[in-house]
Amino acid sequence: MINLAFITGNKHKVMEASILLKEYNIEVTQVSSEKVEIQSERLEEIVRYALESVRLTNRHILIEDAGLFIDSLNGFPGPYSSFAYKTIGVQGVLKLMEGMENRGARFVSVAGIKTLQNEVAIFRGEVEGVITHKPRGTKGFGFDPIFVPKGSSKTFAEMEVKEKNVFSHRAKALRRLAEWILGRRR
Amino acid sequence: MINLAFITGNKHKVMEASILLKEYNIEVTQVSSEKVEIQSERLEEIVRYALESVRLTNRHILIEDAGLFIDSLNGFPGPYSSFAYKTIGVQGVLKLMEGMENRGARFVSVAGIKTLQNEVAIFRGEVEGVITHKPRGTKGFGFDPIFVPKGSSKTFAEMEVKEKNVFSHRAKALRRLAEWILGRRR
Repeated sequence: MINLAFITGNKHKVMEASILLKEYNIEVTQVSSEKVEIQSERLEEIVRYALESVRLTNRHILIEDAGLFIDSLNGFPGPYSSFAYKTIGVQGVLKLMEGMENRGARFVSVAGIKTLQNEVAIFRGEVEGVITHKPRGTKGFGFDPIFVPKGSSKTFAEMEVKEKNVFSHRAKALRRLAEWILGRRR
Repeated sequence: MINLAFITGNKHKVMEASILLKEYNIEVTQVSSEKVEIQSERLEEIVRYALESVRLTNRHILIEDAGLFIDSLNGFPGPYSSFAYKTIGVQGVLKLMEGMENRGARFVSVAGIKTLQNEVAIFRGEVEGVITHKPRGTKGFGFDPIFVPKGSSKTFAEMEVKEKNVFSHRAKALRRLAEWILGRRR
């Protein structure tokens, strides 16, 4: 069984990735290792630089970065979603959206792998949806309580991980990554 | 006369630095060169990494990073002020501050130099102030129209560069940097 060292401090991401990648017979272990996150509006650039900055060499490395891009806020909070969550929070984003009719938004995830053979591959997943008027649900993390993906009436925070993985940006990016891994092993 | 290559895309910063550093007989030239900006809540870390990332070796390098840290928003927008300015803008920050009695904020600047001899030195400047209820003034850049420094009744955007340099975070950091340079030449 392949094992990926997921370099992240976010245990929710590890849980989502573990449950999803199990379908592909890929195992995930959370590892805390130094990585450099650059400022960029392109998540691919952030993930590529981070993969190159990791000094751990005896493992397959997985790094994932994600952001919520809100149409009427010109893509805010985007790559800085976790800082925005920590400072202004869900309530801050709802306040910014007060009176705005266009509630369109998308969650974007970019997942990258650096293999033991030092190959790097990067995959993107996106999900369109809308920003609610009030937070709903207690599962998930970050801005999950205010995002309803297209095709559902629930917020991400009202879904179990398995259901969130049907819709989510992160699941889409990780499926592409898993298929790349499996394709290479055949 | 010493000349510093100021690696920045912001011509307002270059103007402020030029006018201030002239007092110290130091000249500033705007240079566009690649630099890596990392994500960090510590401006010193951002500036140190950026200085190390610059490949230009035949010049004294100046890099400066700044942010507006608003008390009641837990330090938002902080190091990501320029992204916040581009996306939600001055109006977005004022909307976040609606109904907030604590208008306290501070502008922080960190200026760093990497000399021809490859010495690195980093200096911090801060200015306390308040966030206005409406934007005022057309000078300066970024969040200048909504920040009134302690000791003045004008916003930064209502001040000429010379007056802004009496109060500003950037001027304070650059004065420290200039004194360091001059101290070394004696």
